[in-house]
Amino acid sequence: MRVVYSPVHLGHAVTMQTVLGERVPANEVAARAERIRATLLADGGFAVAEPTEHGPGPILAVHDAGILRFLEEAWPAARASGHPYDHLTPEAIMAAGMTEGMAERFRHETPAPDGRPGYWAFDTSTPILAGTFAAARAAVDTALTAVDLVLDGGETAAYGLCRPPGHHAARSMYGGFCYLNNAAIAAEEIARRTGEPVAILDVDYHHGNGTEQIFWRRADVLYVSIHAHPDRAYPYVLGWEDEVGEGLGEGYTLNLPQPAGCTNEQFLDALDLALYRISAEEGSVVVVSLGLDTYRLDPIGDFALTTDAFHEAGRRVAALGRRLVILAEGGYHVPSLGENARAWLRGAEGRPFDPRPALDPGAAWDAA
Amino acid sequence: MRVVYSPVHLGHAVTMQTVLGERVPANEVAARAERIRATLLADGGFAVAEPTEHGPGPILAVHDAGILRFLEEAWPAARASGHPYDHLTPEAIMAAGMTEGMAERFRHETPAPDGRPGYWAFDTSTPILAGTFAAARAAVDTALTAVDLVLDGGETAAYGLCRPPGHHAARSMYGGFCYLNNAAIAAEEIARRTGEPVAILDVDYHHGNGTEQIFWRRADVLYVSIHAHPDRAYPYVLGWEDEVGEGLGEGYTLNLPQPAGCTNEQFLDALDLALYRISAEEGSVVVVSLGLDTYRLDPIGDFALTTDAFHEAGRRVAALGRRLVILAEGGYHVPSLGENARAWLRGAEGRPFDPRPALDPGAAWDAA
Repeated sequence: MRVVYSPVHLGHAVTMQTVLGERVPANEVAARAERIRATLLADGGFAVAEPTEHGPGPILAVHDAGILRFLEEAWPAARASGHPYDHLTPEAIMAAGMTEGMAERFRHETPAPDGRPGYWAFDTSTPILAGTFAAARAAVDTALTAVDLVLDGGETAAYGLCRPPGHHAARSMYGGFCYLNNAAIAAEEIARRTGEPVAILDVDYHHGNGTEQIFWRRADVLYVSIHAHPDRAYPYVLGWEDEVGEGLGEGYTLNLPQPAGCTNEQFLDALDLALYRISAEEGSVVVVSLGLDTYRLDPIGDFALTTDAFHEAGRRVAALGRRLVILAEGGYHVPSLGENARAWLRGAEGRPFDPRPALDPGAAWDAA
Repeated sequence: MRVVYSPVHLGHAVTMQTVLGERVPANEVAARAERIRATLLADGGFAVAEPTEHGPGPILAVHDAGILRFLEEAWPAARASGHPYDHLTPEAIMAAGMTEGMAERFRHETPAPDGRPGYWAFDTSTPILAGTFAAARAAVDTALTAVDLVLDGGETAAYGLCRPPGHHAARSMYGGFCYLNNAAIAAEEIARRTGEPVAILDVDYHHGNGTEQIFWRRADVLYVSIHAHPDRAYPYVLGWEDEVGEGLGEGYTLNLPQPAGCTNEQFLDALDLALYRISAEEGSVVVVSLGLDTYRLDPIGDFALTTDAFHEAGRRVAALGRRLVILAEGGYHVPSLGENARAWLRGAEGRPFDPRPALDPGAAWDAA
């Protein structure tokens, strides 16, 4: 399988994040993508190439122009204003209830460098660093290059090793380690170029609230997600069973939230349901938001999946018989990320999975 | 003047807060109210008494029942769930754009103790501690007891030494060191009991976004605020000149944002404008949101007011000839808070101000 990867992500050098008001070591670190890339290269069956530039057009088909402008300007403006930290993190956020009963035009985007992030962000765990904007743009190009490989390059499937991830980013919001929604931008591009409906299958541990919001009222992009129930898990406010879309989009969002401890069997049963729903719609391409934080050792997840299940999941998704644009999302147990991605992708190719912990030096993780 | 004060605020023992993603020493500390109380007692012209309980009724006339329930349950639930910190601070916040295009019923309030704050909070600098709910309730009782003194007790003016402050708290949101909106609850109670229109004069350095939101569509409660322009200052999203109210409330919000370095003269000119607007409406009672963070040494403000200006401001407000319910809001230069409050309140009583730094031991602050 062809793998798209850009080293530009390394400039998004996150080391710390703010969670529940405390500064803690970051989960969404550069080593994640590096581990996956190294393991796929060592496998021998994957060819890694850099993305091509696609410009802002496909981004603006999905996102508000204001958030793209903000992401570009935020860090230089903060530095010029004497911002004291090596990250830009919001304090006050334009929460829904702040302007309850007020017309939208009264929500002002302040030019103040320290205040402006609160207009576009929804959490504190998604810092803007010097290299963040370039990395977010490169992640979009990574996704769009994977689309090119499938639509124009004759590939049945391609893997975009996107970092930062994207599925929490909404039309006009960033958060959840995500700045621009790689999967949504890819799906929109596929819909535009093929004229067909597109399905997005989101198997990240966390609900892809951004992707859901972007396509909420559309019938031409089906969003199906398997994730931890928001009654206990981030992003909490969305991802509930009753969210089915509205207007033309009613019935084109399907959330399958799972309990803590979700086993291989529970997950694969939910996956069968998701695939059944996808197979009911037309379309020849599926975008997969491939989070690996459903793994049993993930530090911020509570699912119980083993590496075998990733291989089987890839196999079942490929059995849809559709072309696959597979994009990296979350997954924070770095030692296992390479092997779990490799298992999934080999499953999607119909290749057997040969556990080779030696590809991940010192990887005794699955015995932990 | 009668002063209402409750020692229950001491249980809201804030020492640290999260600002721009970093954990820093708190500004909204218990010493603030203690300094004011001690200085007023030393003056000899003020009589301090504790508030009486008023129950939840007046709170629910202004706030969503859900936020009151949340504030009561949040800390016990967090502690029972093994929350690791001595404060509860949100990570992901239900920002406006998260559910853009979606019906309000899809905004879910998760029961998860670590996620639920994000449904009701709009910033990270307003922690919930073990003693927060009791203190917030006592601050409301403090405000309502000041109302009683004026409406039933024959007082021309009374001072409620509320802590935590209130003016950032909206109908269904807490933030900005505020949990329940003491001034809004007092104004609503005055409107109900007098049948008259009520004016709220907010002279805190920060815009009282919560008070504005609560009365945005009402003509019976006029909101007039002098504050730092949100193009550079918290809360950023609100406090702009074009916010004048909507519907029946159009024309009943007046924002007078000021530039950095705002002098005594600029501030008193804005105050004259505010008082002129207030005098154009009926009503015999004015609620004053008395922040002292306009002082020239305030650590988070950038105005240039001196203690003299506070005395003069109190004098001019009293010259309206209306009864005054004066409630404490912000102000973070602890060494000066007592003297500045004393200056304002003596002005409001028509008493001269005699600078007595000796009342604040070691107070060489004004020479700093």
